[in-house]
Amino acid sequence: MKKVNLAIIGIGRIGIIHLKNIIRNFPGANVLAVADVNFSKDDFTKEYPGIIFSANAEEIISLPAVEAVIICTPTSSHAELIEKAIQYGKHIFCEKPVDLSLERTALLVKKVAAAGLKLMLGFNRRFDPDFMEANKNIRSGRIGELQVVKITSRDPGLPPLDYIKHSGGLFMDMAIHDFDMARYMMGKEVVEVYAKGLVLVDEKVGEAGDIDTALTTLVFEDGTYAVIDNSRKAVYGYDQRIEVFGSNGMIQVKNNLHNSNVVFDSDGIHQALPLDFFMDRYACSYLNEMKYFIDALLTNAALPVSGADGLMATYIAVAAKKSMIEKRPVLISEIML
Amino acid sequence: MKKVNLAIIGIGRIGIIHLKNIIRNFPGANVLAVADVNFSKDDFTKEYPGIIFSANAEEIISLPAVEAVIICTPTSSHAELIEKAIQYGKHIFCEKPVDLSLERTALLVKKVAAAGLKLMLGFNRRFDPDFMEANKNIRSGRIGELQVVKITSRDPGLPPLDYIKHSGGLFMDMAIHDFDMARYMMGKEVVEVYAKGLVLVDEKVGEAGDIDTALTTLVFEDGTYAVIDNSRKAVYGYDQRIEVFGSNGMIQVKNNLHNSNVVFDSDGIHQALPLDFFMDRYACSYLNEMKYFIDALLTNAALPVSGADGLMATYIAVAAKKSMIEKRPVLISEIML
Amino acid sequence: MKKVNLAIIGIGRIGIIHLKNIIRNFPGANVLAVADVNFSKDDFTKEYPGIIFSANAEEIISLPAVEAVIICTPTSSHAELIEKAIQYGKHIFCEKPVDLSLERTALLVKKVAAAGLKLMLGFNRRFDPDFMEANKNIRSGRIGELQVVKITSRDPGLPPLDYIKHSGGLFMDMAIHDFDMARYMMGKEVVEVYAKGLVLVDEKVGEAGDIDTALTTLVFEDGTYAVIDNSRKAVYGYDQRIEVFGSNGMIQVKNNLHNSNVVFDSDGIHQALPLDFFMDRYACSYLNEMKYFIDALLTNAALPVSGADGLMATYIAVAAKKSMIEKRPVLISEIML
Amino acid sequence: MKKVNLAIIGIGRIGIIHLKNIIRNFPGANVLAVADVNFSKDDFTKEYPGIIFSANAEEIISLPAVEAVIICTPTSSHAELIEKAIQYGKHIFCEKPVDLSLERTALLVKKVAAAGLKLMLGFNRRFDPDFMEANKNIRSGRIGELQVVKITSRDPGLPPLDYIKHSGGLFMDMAIHDFDMARYMMGKEVVEVYAKGLVLVDEKVGEAGDIDTALTTLVFEDGTYAVIDNSRKAVYGYDQRIEVFGSNGMIQVKNNLHNSNVVFDSDGIHQALPLDFFMDRYACSYLNEMKYFIDALLTNAALPVSGADGLMATYIAVAAKKSMIEKRPVLISEIML
Repeated sequence: MKKVNLAIIGIGRIGIIHLKNIIRNFPGANVLAVADVNFSKDDFTKEYPGIIFSANAEEIISLPAVEAVIICTPTSSHAELIEKAIQYGKHIFCEKPVDLSLERTALLVKKVAAAGLKLMLGFNRRFDPDFMEANKNIRSGRIGELQVVKITSRDPGLPPLDYIKHSGGLFMDMAIHDFDMARYMMGKEVVEVYAKGLVLVDEKVGEAGDIDTALTTLVFEDGTYAVIDNSRKAVYGYDQRIEVFGSNGMIQVKNNLHNSNVVFDSDGIHQALPLDFFMDRYACSYLNEMKYFIDALLTNAALPVSGADGLMATYIAVAAKKSMIEKRPVLISEIML
Repeated sequence: MKKVNLAIIGIGRIGIIHLKNIIRNFPGANVLAVADVNFSKDDFTKEYPGIIFSANAEEIISLPAVEAVIICTPTSSHAELIEKAIQYGKHIFCEKPVDLSLERTALLVKKVAAAGLKLMLGFNRRFDPDFMEANKNIRSGRIGELQVVKITSRDPGLPPLDYIKHSGGLFMDMAIHDFDMARYMMGKEVVEVYAKGLVLVDEKVGEAGDIDTALTTLVFEDGTYAVIDNSRKAVYGYDQRIEVFGSNGMIQVKNNLHNSNVVFDSDGIHQALPLDFFMDRYACSYLNEMKYFIDALLTNAALPVSGADGLMATYIAVAAKKSMIEKRPVLISEIML
Repeated sequence: MKKVNLAIIGIGRIGIIHLKNIIRNFPGANVLAVADVNFSKDDFTKEYPGIIFSANAEEIISLPAVEAVIICTPTSSHAELIEKAIQYGKHIFCEKPVDLSLERTALLVKKVAAAGLKLMLGFNRRFDPDFMEANKNIRSGRIGELQVVKITSRDPGLPPLDYIKHSGGLFMDMAIHDFDMARYMMGKEVVEVYAKGLVLVDEKVGEAGDIDTALTTLVFEDGTYAVIDNSRKAVYGYDQRIEVFGSNGMIQVKNNLHNSNVVFDSDGIHQALPLDFFMDRYACSYLNEMKYFIDALLTNAALPVSGADGLMATYIAVAAKKSMIEKRPVLISEIML
Repeated sequence: MKKVNLAIIGIGRIGIIHLKNIIRNFPGANVLAVADVNFSKDDFTKEYPGIIFSANAEEIISLPAVEAVIICTPTSSHAELIEKAIQYGKHIFCEKPVDLSLERTALLVKKVAAAGLKLMLGFNRRFDPDFMEANKNIRSGRIGELQVVKITSRDPGLPPLDYIKHSGGLFMDMAIHDFDMARYMMGKEVVEVYAKGLVLVDEKVGEAGDIDTALTTLVFEDGTYAVIDNSRKAVYGYDQRIEVFGSNGMIQVKNNLHNSNVVFDSDGIHQALPLDFFMDRYACSYLNEMKYFIDALLTNAALPVSGADGLMATYIAVAAKKSMIEKRPVLISEIML
């Protein structure tokens, strides 16, 4: 059986998940090498004896046997690592976003394509079983012509302020997942964006130059729309719901709760909260996205989320920020490069 | 338009509901007269100027224009009033049970039939819109051959001890509704009863010679069964649920909640409790049962719940008590008169 | 006991509901007179023998004993009837909207106030038990500082095209309920409106000069917002849901379903659809709103929905339409008179 | 870090799950050896190169380095393998039941205890996260004094008839899980059993000497009870629900559905069915039970499910069958050895 040789660059929270998922679940893939600047080589090698380790990413990316690299480092290093991958002719899986700069994102996507390489963006939510099921039903025509998609996407709590400062802002860091989800569910392109944003959770977010609450309207090419409701803090857990309305019906994707218990007492009927940590809520989607990436490498199939998808989501994020600042609807064509 | 002339005997909690329901909703019926020993004639006549009132039930029952009587007095007087109604040739609607004595119940049912009169028992739950919908679906074959019905029937709290003492006991007073419901849902006759009962809510119930918690299994003629779970006290409200299992599926009737609000906070997801008072929970069923009674009078149609149904439920209640005492399954044929 | 004498002008669908509700439920009110141009006096008097009837509204409004008029005629006649009520010094309950013209609405509201009369607008949804419960919880601080309200308001089907042509358009006719609901839930004033609208249900709506699908964002004075999703046609019934998000939690108001049955079969788990007719869904709210109106008349209490509320909702509706046409956010101050 | 050396005997459906779960998830355990009569040594060794393999169970059980054996072979071989484990002084994890013979089960449980060895029975449902959460809440006093537990346990479809013939019958093979669950939830001992059973799913089950539908009532030492509803075939999936009623409330454990999608169309509101395969439904519980077993081995802690628990469940199963045949309640003391 053919195995594809992979290298993982960055084994923080997400990188380690991908590492473990590949080792445990995909006999068609082999993690040949790993690079990370924070891990000790000894510690890593003790736990993963068969895997080459280096603090130097290029050393790993350049290994001839490596066929694809999985980039899980902080956003600021994505561009450089993608450049290296292109240089050494490796396919790429990169956590979102490609880069905070739209120009650089567009350039990299173009370069990857020109080099005939595959680039998959880590829009993991597309691979969540519940959202996939909704998408499958929608694509099958179950609810007819699509009219509106409404996305509720509320984090369980603020990330560290230091993270926020380097995040590129709520639209680029957080809502970008929802922008991609809106495109995924509707199967149409966004042409106009209108966004409102404000600071309701913590003044320090404002002092850090960001917002923590936002509402974004996306208009698709045929006039139908998406509305996305974001907050950095839902005290009741991680609120990740979608409703898609069509001419023949509506599909709702509900939250995943901690458990299925219902407690009845003299005060009311009580259920457990939604899963409140993204790595729990989306555990399956991290696994599935890697499965799709590996399958695409093995079979030379098309990627389910391409660099072009990452670029479109970035366009929307940039347009949303511009709309919020200029207090007007912004056309994607205004900012398209 | 023909109107049927009715008399109501007893205008306590239930009688007054029937009185108001008829006045407000049924142009085909006319409440001609009312009898009650606790109400002042002046007070009544002030509020209902067109209705004849008497403290003497026979005076009212014997009025030639009265075509049917609605008996809403305490159980102990039912038998005598039914006798009077038979004597004067009036159709009868009687709150359950006909009588605490099985013999007298059987005799009265026979006499009414012999007199060619209609007798409807107040098994109001058969007229609850949710249960009617389930029944309609079941009769239509929606879930195939019926296998099992499970009834959860838990009161929100203990009735006064004095009430319990004269109630005939949990099986005759409370579970009798569920025995009738089991027959209604399954559309089959019960042949065997096995019941357990105990005192878990309040020792005083035991001192009063009754139980407050019971589990009853009814076996139908074809071997399929019903299981009925009763308690006099559910702290979370009035728990009135049914599940019917068939070869092609299952139908669940859920509780009716106080409202449709769902509150999410850092402690959990919270909903309102079930309606906790039987007159709220079954408001529609009281209205509907009277509609069916009046329609049957106007069109000479068959009654949806007959005296025979009341008798069958009484047989089951007697068998349940016997089973509990003798700690063995009891056949209906053992006690049938 | 004091009784307030009322006159109802117009006994179409809504007027007849108010008439019956008052007769059956409010001993403190007396429907003295009714006016309607479509009903025959004979027919009416036969059914309601004690009530004065005329085809001439002024004849009824001018009756000295009438203390308040309930206006349930088509919108085009509201203004004239309100003028008459003012002329004769009667309090007013008027179905929404006051008038399609903002100027006339503002003028009438001012005139009513100047005359020291009460004017209540028929925003019945404020009186729905589920929405009232949510509002009560919100006002009590249950979910902390309010951040966002999201309203889903989708009709079960298109009204007749002829109705649409004279309706004032989706924002003035349909969404106006939701604009009022947003203010009711948030307890804040709207300062800015951004709306998108399009024709997705039926081209004929577009030919009639209206839209059938719309998304409206309302910004409140403190920057928080409402988002309202309207459609003239939800094939799955009447979709009337609200979610209010606060710093300490979220409150959801769910749809009212036809029944509480859940059917499980080999294809899935199935529930009944939401109530699909507004007069069923809001049966309680029509009753409650009249209770509040009558109570206010009897006790001289403040009205729960005033003419000023009707005017604010009209401002929002006008701003929404302007925003849709000019493709930009519109400030309420731009159109305020 | 100390590792415990395990051997797995039998790697059919369940054995392979335990093998994979241990390898992937428990650094504190080492699968040293595996025995199976159906697997080829070459195939096994190719996939699991580091693990000793033999077709001879004794060869594996007797390996000095093996500290505990996990028995996943068909029931008929359990007794002999447990004897071997005792002979070689190994701790034991055994899939339920220990044996179809009550006498042999009792003897083995006694022998294991006498040898100072640990024996855990594979009542995996105790380790399901939803049931564990309910149990935790119950033990904490969340619903007060326990009164009644109701278990719905319906398989998605008939097993092969050949399996049924050697299964020991519905009570011993299927309901035994529920008997254990009832004890787990109530934390009390069963003293009396009353069971009804019949053939409703397929006549061939009856011809094979078994039933496919059963209702069992268990009475606990304090008179409270459990009612268990079993069917071999629920067309709507695997129905695994529990309700526990106490003096202060009720806890419901609902089914796990295939996904969280809700589809609204003109026919109704539709949800996905419950997970229909026990290895999907209880995937987590298989993992958790092994975690508890390994932890107990590593720390010498008490086992969460002991051989004595297995014996009690067997007593109940035997009593249930006797009750069904003799058509009367059977005391556990009647059959206790």
